[in-house]
Amino acid sequence: MNILIIGGAGMLGAKLVARLCKEGRICGQAISKVVRHDVVLAAAPPTSPFKIETHIGDLSEPGEAEKIIADRPDLIFHLAAVVSGEAEADFEKGYRINLDGTRFLIEAIRKAGGGYCPRLVFTSSIAVFGSPFPDAIGDEFLTAPLTSYGTQKAVDELLISDYSRRGFLDGMALRMPTVCVRPGKPNKAASGFFSNIIREPLNGIEAVLPVDVDVRHWHASPRAAVGFLVQAAEMGGAALGARRALTLPGLSCTVGEQIEALRRVAGDKAVKLIKHQPDDTIRKIVSGWPRNFDAKRAHDLGFRSEKTFDEIIRVHIEDELGGKLAQAYP
Amino acid sequence: MNILIIGGAGMLGAKLVARLCKEGRICGQAISKVVRHDVVLAAAPPTSPFKIETHIGDLSEPGEAEKIIADRPDLIFHLAAVVSGEAEADFEKGYRINLDGTRFLIEAIRKAGGGYCPRLVFTSSIAVFGSPFPDAIGDEFLTAPLTSYGTQKAVDELLISDYSRRGFLDGMALRMPTVCVRPGKPNKAASGFFSNIIREPLNGIEAVLPVDVDVRHWHASPRAAVGFLVQAAEMGGAALGARRALTLPGLSCTVGEQIEALRRVAGDKAVKLIKHQPDDTIRKIVSGWPRNFDAKRAHDLGFRSEKTFDEIIRVHIEDELGGKLAQAYP
Repeated sequence: MNILIIGGAGMLGAKLVARLCKEGRICGQAISKVVRHDVVLAAAPPTSPFKIETHIGDLSEPGEAEKIIADRPDLIFHLAAVVSGEAEADFEKGYRINLDGTRFLIEAIRKAGGGYCPRLVFTSSIAVFGSPFPDAIGDEFLTAPLTSYGTQKAVDELLISDYSRRGFLDGMALRMPTVCVRPGKPNKAASGFFSNIIREPLNGIEAVLPVDVDVRHWHASPRAAVGFLVQAAEMGGAALGARRALTLPGLSCTVGEQIEALRRVAGDKAVKLIKHQPDDTIRKIVSGWPRNFDAKRAHDLGFRSEKTFDEIIRVHIEDELGGKLAQAYP
Repeated sequence: MNILIIGGAGMLGAKLVARLCKEGRICGQAISKVVRHDVVLAAAPPTSPFKIETHIGDLSEPGEAEKIIADRPDLIFHLAAVVSGEAEADFEKGYRINLDGTRFLIEAIRKAGGGYCPRLVFTSSIAVFGSPFPDAIGDEFLTAPLTSYGTQKAVDELLISDYSRRGFLDGMALRMPTVCVRPGKPNKAASGFFSNIIREPLNGIEAVLPVDVDVRHWHASPRAAVGFLVQAAEMGGAALGARRALTLPGLSCTVGEQIEALRRVAGDKAVKLIKHQPDDTIRKIVSGWPRNFDAKRAHDLGFRSEKTFDEIIRVHIEDELGGKLAQAYP
């Protein structure tokens, strides 16, 4: 099994590579090679029973897509994207990377010939939905995005469904929940605080909460997200029929519920490190985001996410903190 | 008011030009010029109180979009498309005309500068929907097309919504019902029979019915369709908020109900000219088509279509047959 990971230097890409290295197999076959492709250099990979190649390049450059599928990968994970904030700030870059890049990839696959029809697992986003919403967004709710990023992902979903229906590839577009607790440093993404208010206090560091505690959102751990990618790859797109975009399961909870989970796991001391500093800009952005889903289709297909936010925090402690809380929380 | 009609040589384009010629005004202003653009030469226009220019060109050719918006039309009707059957048979042509052509147009508008922000009325289609359907498709039902044509229209809808939200243009994507009774000769479109079984008998000519009489579909007359275009242009996109795609009203009726309407309007002799010759290919195609809608949003905005199929037939007799039935039906 020859695997290509586009966006392989990112957080999910690195965790996906780590899982593939650990398992050595996917879709019932031994992995022969993993190629990591990204615009920046990926960190050194873990020890693996198969060859790992690392390529730097921009999928939106003409000819790049043809180059990266030249050795006909059997399975392609396409995780690369300009994030929401950047796609809104730089209109042309967002369309170039998030729409043209994906189209170049599927066009290169279509034109490859020789019966080439790889499995393609693409990360879409709940940003394809825009308010007003029902209480829980079902599998038949329209995609009416309120950002250019969401528009680009919704277009990609449509293209992947059509190219799959035509038999050019076997695609799946996975609408990921917000990945939380995101490891690493705080970033400036509007959604960053959902992770910051957990990760930073667990390290004994203050974190800013810019919204009210009744804000509700849709979460899954990085471990669950990687699990979705692997499970989708194993399942294949045929299980989705003509509708290749799939809303994945997640946990709907309020910021207040996140904080109470932190209190149960790490105590009052941790919670006291959260500083409430309302930010009207972020409050406004977040007010247009999905709060809850009824991901029945994915659930019926066997996809599962965490059931409590306590569990999401414990996954973070296991995967990022070596299973232990910082010294401040004995 | 300077108006550009892309796809101006088609059936709807010709009827739209005729209506604009008759009224001389739109959006509360006198029309100063109408430019008809198409890949084929449009028929001679009717007498008009304003200048009519006719250009031949292909919107999907680089530079063409810039050329046709060079004199900054205030209002653009974009009706041009490769039809469903052709977009399915010729994958590349469908994407080139129906997706790239539209994108070239909105990109040219975005880059025009100088505060240029025209009103754009785009004809989308109920082909953006794919089965399985609810009994009546509501305004919040997902777009999951089962054809490349439907995919291209759904992508165009998303782009027009995003470009409108960003303030580059004031767009509306109108999901037209199947236009019936379509004037002219029988064509090979899979949907042609809906019109053929009415138009041909009214002219004393036999027509083939390839599906069963319980097939239900969604219709509006050509007059209603042109009315939708003008009404949308007058309304402007702001009334649609962020969701610029609008399912228009239509009449849901079965082929059997169409035939009974024909009997009431033109008698048994006309109905006897319909020959039932089931065609499994057409039956299969039609079985995946939408049957009924709850177009509440458009209705609330004041859009109206015919309420009975008798009315649709009478519109055809008035607009195409000079108000009189052929001699065979005194």
